[in-house]
Amino acid sequence: MPVLVMKFGGTSVANLDRIRRAAKRVGVEVAKGYDVIVIVSAMSGETNKLVGLVDETSPLYDAREYDAVVSSGENVTAGLMALTLQEMDVPARSWQGWQVPLLTTSAHSQARIEDIPTDHLNAKFGEGMRVAVVAGFQGLSPEGRITTLGRGGSDTTAVAFAAAFDAERCDIYTDVDGVYTTDPRISPKARKLDKIAFEEMLELASLGAKVLQTRSVELAMRYKVKLRVLSSFEEQSDEAGTLVCDEEEIMESNVVAGVAYSRDEAKMTLLSVADRPGIASIIFGCLSDAGVNVDMIVQNISEDGRTDMTYSLPTDQVKRAEQALDQLKNDGGLNFQELVIDEDVAKVSVVGIGMRSQSGVAAKMFKVLSDEGINIKVITTSEIKISVLIDRKYMELAVQALHDAFELEKA
Amino acid sequence: MPVLVMKFGGTSVANLDRIRRAAKRVGVEVAKGYDVIVIVSAMSGETNKLVGLVDETSPLYDAREYDAVVSSGENVTAGLMALTLQEMDVPARSWQGWQVPLLTTSAHSQARIEDIPTDHLNAKFGEGMRVAVVAGFQGLSPEGRITTLGRGGSDTTAVAFAAAFDAERCDIYTDVDGVYTTDPRISPKARKLDKIAFEEMLELASLGAKVLQTRSVELAMRYKVKLRVLSSFEEQSDEAGTLVCDEEEIMESNVVAGVAYSRDEAKMTLLSVADRPGIASIIFGCLSDAGVNVDMIVQNISEDGRTDMTYSLPTDQVKRAEQALDQLKNDGGLNFQELVIDEDVAKVSVVGIGMRSQSGVAAKMFKVLSDEGINIKVITTSEIKISVLIDRKYMELAVQALHDAFELEKA
Repeated sequence: MPVLVMKFGGTSVANLDRIRRAAKRVGVEVAKGYDVIVIVSAMSGETNKLVGLVDETSPLYDAREYDAVVSSGENVTAGLMALTLQEMDVPARSWQGWQVPLLTTSAHSQARIEDIPTDHLNAKFGEGMRVAVVAGFQGLSPEGRITTLGRGGSDTTAVAFAAAFDAERCDIYTDVDGVYTTDPRISPKARKLDKIAFEEMLELASLGAKVLQTRSVELAMRYKVKLRVLSSFEEQSDEAGTLVCDEEEIMESNVVAGVAYSRDEAKMTLLSVADRPGIASIIFGCLSDAGVNVDMIVQNISEDGRTDMTYSLPTDQVKRAEQALDQLKNDGGLNFQELVIDEDVAKVSVVGIGMRSQSGVAAKMFKVLSDEGINIKVITTSEIKISVLIDRKYMELAVQALHDAFELEKA
Repeated sequence: MPVLVMKFGGTSVANLDRIRRAAKRVGVEVAKGYDVIVIVSAMSGETNKLVGLVDETSPLYDAREYDAVVSSGENVTAGLMALTLQEMDVPARSWQGWQVPLLTTSAHSQARIEDIPTDHLNAKFGEGMRVAVVAGFQGLSPEGRITTLGRGGSDTTAVAFAAAFDAERCDIYTDVDGVYTTDPRISPKARKLDKIAFEEMLELASLGAKVLQTRSVELAMRYKVKLRVLSSFEEQSDEAGTLVCDEEEIMESNVVAGVAYSRDEAKMTLLSVADRPGIASIIFGCLSDAGVNVDMIVQNISEDGRTDMTYSLPTDQVKRAEQALDQLKNDGGLNFQELVIDEDVAKVSVVGIGMRSQSGVAAKMFKVLSDEGINIKVITTSEIKISVLIDRKYMELAVQALHDAFELEKA
């Protein structure tokens, strides 16, 4: 029988009523003839509670013990979902990550999936089981210890199962009903997309649209898994939600698919560093060692053999970056005049695969912002994305103006 | 190095402060030179919460899913305990039941321990690990699924580990500071026992003294595990608590070690059943099939080939027993005149290995009760125990009078 993967996030299994609601949806797909693999998150709030206990116990915790503790929320939901399905006379049972087993690397708390053997579950499907409920977010290391895949890791679990079992589709049930052209809280004209290309979704996810974990989209793209994002709180048709798919499957699309933003950005500028080969490697190697995620990087033109280096990073990593660079300066590893920090910036991006074939998108974006009197601090571009760093107070204005200018409210 | 097993119950790990307190106690034993195996329960309240979720989801639940869900509380505590010990610079890590593995039968929710391979943990001790924190209450079935050992099963886990690793002692930390001659809430003269024989503890445990799970005492007796019950809330010396041990290790003891009681008892009498071979088998087979735990049984003398059959059972099983017997009567499987139910009874017992060698204990017990005007409804005796069923309203009076008469306040 064809296999369908259905993933329910924390808000979709927040209590027994919602688990029953999710189970009914699973029952509908079973009635259609699918063998279903259900991936569940922990009840909303549970994982945060467990993370809080670990943090309070041990600020510099052993990630192996962290994983053993925080993975337990998913085990509870998996068992309850299987019981709920059994109550509805659907043959179902639960699996924990180590039982499948979902094999991962040993990189605790951010492990990567290595393999999912399919024989065991397929044998059970062959014996008449119709639903395998699997605890998301968790796996088994080569050392036989429990690993977790990082926050949002259940999305990745779901896509990995869809790839391993050659599923017809991977449905991600969440608390929004799809992917929007932008955040509806910022622009009321935001429109739900019926389809979006993997590449676009990847950019949107990495830009902070929290619908899907970035890695799950990467994995779906690599293994050509049809991924659908839809709401567990609305009645569903087969066309509900947003389908994330190969761009070939999208017949016609706007040049720009969406406008994304990221509020918690900061900008740092190193004034007057030596402009010589290897200097960027020293700076960003140092920041990487300190666990700082640098995003946009701009280097000024050189004057008298010295230059300025500007980059953006998440606001909550500013302290860490500052300390690391001061240390580097004190150790004589790097000479610079001053470190200028601007913590009041935001990033706004337009994303669309249509940009590849259509020019003028960047020019139009800059003109729209200029017309609104918004100054651009840093620009970066990729094949299908243009991002700018601006003062945070203009963020909403910029998103709305760009959404209007690219007419994203129109299909 | 010698091995010590330390078990901490739910109230002893109820929050992070208490886990730290327990970890300090573990640290003291490590400093003495022990390799320690710590068995932890779930934080108090957690298992009840999980059982509640399962019951609400599925009244006639699949016990395999029940086990997968309710075992998760212990996983959390095990990880937190390991992290706390690490914070104190004690080399420690956690194990879940399936990781050890603690191998059990497939009798889900009441599995019995089959084997605990010691190679893996011993190798870790050999590498310098000082504390193995193991999630109590849970194991692994031959089918590779999670099992649980029944309520209070962490005590049994602890004793099984002590037996498998030939531990010097198994310390059970709980919220009382030992085993008492009777419940101090009923008799203020109750005295803590320094030592008690396995057989006595077994009788007391099965009589409702909730200090230790009955099976854990059986197991300790079989494998000669020195078992100590002590409070995690008081400063400890090496002589703290109560040692449960072989009777040979108890130099001198009172004839009666303690007075136990059980409040929630009911009495049922089947009036005028045929007095013929096989009749008891029919009655108690039927009750057993209905899941009724019959305790005391008395059969009246026969008149005209008919007799009365009386037995006691827990109050909350009366409905079930009544239905089963009515069904049996309607099906023609058993003929009786009437079923008389008395739900207002209690059981009071005196227990002591000294009874084996000293006669007159029963006579003295009956006289004490008679002097207080308490009518005895049913009597049963074993080698080291005499139990009587009486009206519930006299229960406290009976316990106090017997405690006084046998001078249990004196060592």
